[in-house]
Amino acid sequence: MARKASKGGAALTHIDAAGEARMVDISAKAATERTAIAEGRVVMGKATLDLIVSGNAKKGDVLGTARIAGIMAAKRTSELIPLCHPLALSKVRLDITPDKKLPGCIVRATVKVTGPTGVEMEALTAVSVACLTIYDMIKAVERGIRIEGIHLVEKIGGKSGHYRAER
Amino acid sequence: MARKASKGGAALTHIDAAGEARMVDISAKAATERTAIAEGRVVMGKATLDLIVSGNAKKGDVLGTARIAGIMAAKRTSELIPLCHPLALSKVRLDITPDKKLPGCIVRATVKVTGPTGVEMEALTAVSVACLTIYDMIKAVERGIRIEGIHLVEKIGGKSGHYRAER
Amino acid sequence: MARKASKGGAALTHIDAAGEARMVDISAKAATERTAIAEGRVVMGKATLDLIVSGNAKKGDVLGTARIAGIMAAKRTSELIPLCHPLALSKVRLDITPDKKLPGCIVRATVKVTGPTGVEMEALTAVSVACLTIYDMIKAVERGIRIEGIHLVEKIGGKSGHYRAER
Amino acid sequence: MARKASKGGAALTHIDAAGEARMVDISAKAATERTAIAEGRVVMGKATLDLIVSGNAKKGDVLGTARIAGIMAAKRTSELIPLCHPLALSKVRLDITPDKKLPGCIVRATVKVTGPTGVEMEALTAVSVACLTIYDMIKAVERGIRIEGIHLVEKIGGKSGHYRAER
Amino acid sequence: MARKASKGGAALTHIDAAGEARMVDISAKAATERTAIAEGRVVMGKATLDLIVSGNAKKGDVLGTARIAGIMAAKRTSELIPLCHPLALSKVRLDITPDKKLPGCIVRATVKVTGPTGVEMEALTAVSVACLTIYDMIKAVERGIRIEGIHLVEKIGGKSGHYRAER
Amino acid sequence: MARKASKGGAALTHIDAAGEARMVDISAKAATERTAIAEGRVVMGKATLDLIVSGNAKKGDVLGTARIAGIMAAKRTSELIPLCHPLALSKVRLDITPDKKLPGCIVRATVKVTGPTGVEMEALTAVSVACLTIYDMIKAVERGIRIEGIHLVEKIGGKSGHYRAER
Repeated sequence: MARKASKGGAALTHIDAAGEARMVDISAKAATERTAIAEGRVVMGKATLDLIVSGNAKKGDVLGTARIAGIMAAKRTSELIPLCHPLALSKVRLDITPDKKLPGCIVRATVKVTGPTGVEMEALTAVSVACLTIYDMIKAVERGIRIEGIHLVEKIGGKSGHYRAER
Repeated sequence: MARKASKGGAALTHIDAAGEARMVDISAKAATERTAIAEGRVVMGKATLDLIVSGNAKKGDVLGTARIAGIMAAKRTSELIPLCHPLALSKVRLDITPDKKLPGCIVRATVKVTGPTGVEMEALTAVSVACLTIYDMIKAVERGIRIEGIHLVEKIGGKSGHYRAER
Repeated sequence: MARKASKGGAALTHIDAAGEARMVDISAKAATERTAIAEGRVVMGKATLDLIVSGNAKKGDVLGTARIAGIMAAKRTSELIPLCHPLALSKVRLDITPDKKLPGCIVRATVKVTGPTGVEMEALTAVSVACLTIYDMIKAVERGIRIEGIHLVEKIGGKSGHYRAER
Repeated sequence: MARKASKGGAALTHIDAAGEARMVDISAKAATERTAIAEGRVVMGKATLDLIVSGNAKKGDVLGTARIAGIMAAKRTSELIPLCHPLALSKVRLDITPDKKLPGCIVRATVKVTGPTGVEMEALTAVSVACLTIYDMIKAVERGIRIEGIHLVEKIGGKSGHYRAER
Repeated sequence: MARKASKGGAALTHIDAAGEARMVDISAKAATERTAIAEGRVVMGKATLDLIVSGNAKKGDVLGTARIAGIMAAKRTSELIPLCHPLALSKVRLDITPDKKLPGCIVRATVKVTGPTGVEMEALTAVSVACLTIYDMIKAVERGIRIEGIHLVEKIGGKSGHYRAER
Repeated sequence: MARKASKGGAALTHIDAAGEARMVDISAKAATERTAIAEGRVVMGKATLDLIVSGNAKKGDVLGTARIAGIMAAKRTSELIPLCHPLALSKVRLDITPDKKLPGCIVRATVKVTGPTGVEMEALTAVSVACLTIYDMIKAVERGIRIEGIHLVEKIGGKSGHYRAER
């Protein structure tokens, strides 16, 4: 799952030589089109999932609300994550799919920018907040909900090239 | 893990009879002391964890930055989660523990309020954003990082009484 | 429509004797339950309304999105309106009704608080932002949309007593 | 007032084929100069208008405060309107004119950007929040205030060309 | 100027035994009325001050804008200062006085709350942002501006009692 | 310290001919690389400084927290300062140095952008909020703290060229 990280002199780019956090200088990087796709899931009981899909929530407002919360959160990533750069996102899309096998919901975010740095954090933040919003709306009927497997699915553009998670 | 959810007429409190999202009326609830503890983990490669613990980040700025991000996010929960009530939090504490067995970091948030509703969402939001912040600071050295197991550990106070997750 | 305003020495409470804006001192006011209901409407062409009600938006996401935007905006009123006090809202509800006669949508917000001051501005802000959100989602198909008649419908609680707009 | 909206296959761009809200992809659009002018009015009693123009507010702080609130709100449009793109505005100007005939105030906002999408929503949000701010500052002396006629006056730039409202 | 700080076991309350930042638990503290007054000054050239007082800014919009910015900033203190508690401020007042002797402007903020903790940081944040706003509006005509002497003038209420700065 | 300001027709750019505040139009300005460095200091008692450097805060969390607060504040400058333009910052760096001679801490911020306008206000806001955060964390042990000498140290890029403060 992990790439080799610290062979020789690998170092964390967000930490300078004195061990202090900093916002990395991206002024020399070109503004190019970049896309990131992230995913996570909210795991719940079968009865709770039924409520989301066919209960009094049948008009879709649990998933609709989570979708909006995720889109809005993507736009606020640089306010939440201290060392993220502000970016003028050109697209945010949230797909939330109920999954009976989990049981639960699979949340996927696709974010696009034309800018000097990537949008992984924006996609991951959108997924996290959409998952939290689903959690919030069902927590009164179930307490053991878990948010699992938040990860980067795919990354296109940028000097590090195309990345696709193995599974 | 799940409580029985919809035996008989269980319904989602955040959705009204017409299937529309709403912010639940809590004006009749008493302001009492409530605490919530949530947890999650950031799973990474061993080499990446070493960088956090003893690399150029040795002065603790990865975990310190994540701690601050989590505390600040707890205070903004009602801006991020559409149906959360604004609350005047009386305490937020983030504990982040590197764990060689994962390998990765375990993030725990403890949030307290004297108010009419609980602070689960605030604790879960603090954990989520702290995990995202760790992710952000190490993503340049490893791409396969995953955020796992975000859940409520314990909840004290409020009319539903004491809750403690089974594991 | 207007009450008599300045017979004798009426003065604006948000402006002091020197003509300077200030946030009024409410520390001597009791925290009591207060409700405000506000309304406004988005006026559009019949064809546009049809799209909202039965077009590709038929699953309700235009109105659902506007509802969420209105609820979230109510919580941010004191960030937007310079002299508004921050308040811990206990309820926010948005009702949006398509109306063929307008044609358009009628937006109504109900906001409640237990606090030292009223929530008219929160209800009016929720209505305004919900109207703007509807506007945003339909502006690509129609440019002549108008937002009309944003006003306070009813106000309950507080020392000035019950108020109900004449129409 | 309305353009023909749905002849043939018109559809809402903010809603996808599945009826779900999304932030439209603007990455293929060129960054060009765009201007939008919006207008609205706050209708009040004559006595209230007198207070704004020549009462204890005579130094202009009601209108000055509303102007600042409108400018600041324009910059936060993408935080308030769920599907709006964040934009680096290059100019925001608010003009507020007392009008004895209304009686009330006419609020006009001019917003400019060099970017891939227009700024109608920014101009309309600036007008709305400036109107709400005027409302807030006079509501203690008059309850029947109404905000009316928020609409787009003019739009310059962008692929849809020049638009000017008929009245 | 300084109180004796670390005789014996004095320690920073915002840092726990492990040296980690935390938001102090105030849940056991009573909600009482508390006031804080802070002050600072913007030092500029005489010609610049003249512009503020009698130039094209004569209608007071430099000081009026700074006043509004300070009031709004006070309300956002807990978003800016990581370990500050969110508080429902009951009053914020900014007084800005041009001073020919400096030459410059003296900025004073008075903030009040009925709550479990004090409002020094809110008053100091209001002063800081009002000073920065004045700076912003005059920086095109003078570059050597300095913001000086931001400090707490007076603090009333709370268990530590009345405090008044010596000068 | 001051440049000659108003010889002949100098006027404040943020104020129009009618004396009203406005956000200056920067749409005709080229996007070029610009850097600003600002500085300020927090003056405290020697015992308090010792606590920061070697007390229970020895792991650096006072300065680490202030650094993060400053970085995050830089990104929010346009939300705080009414007439500032939103800018996509490409770098923010905070350097905080304990200084026994003051005694206190010297706070320096370096901000970079590729954009149509400069980043002085962003650097000054970062310094101000970092100073306020240090103040917040030590105020329980000392009340006479002062924030002094916030000023622009250096400015590179932009049509007005290189500027360096005399001292």
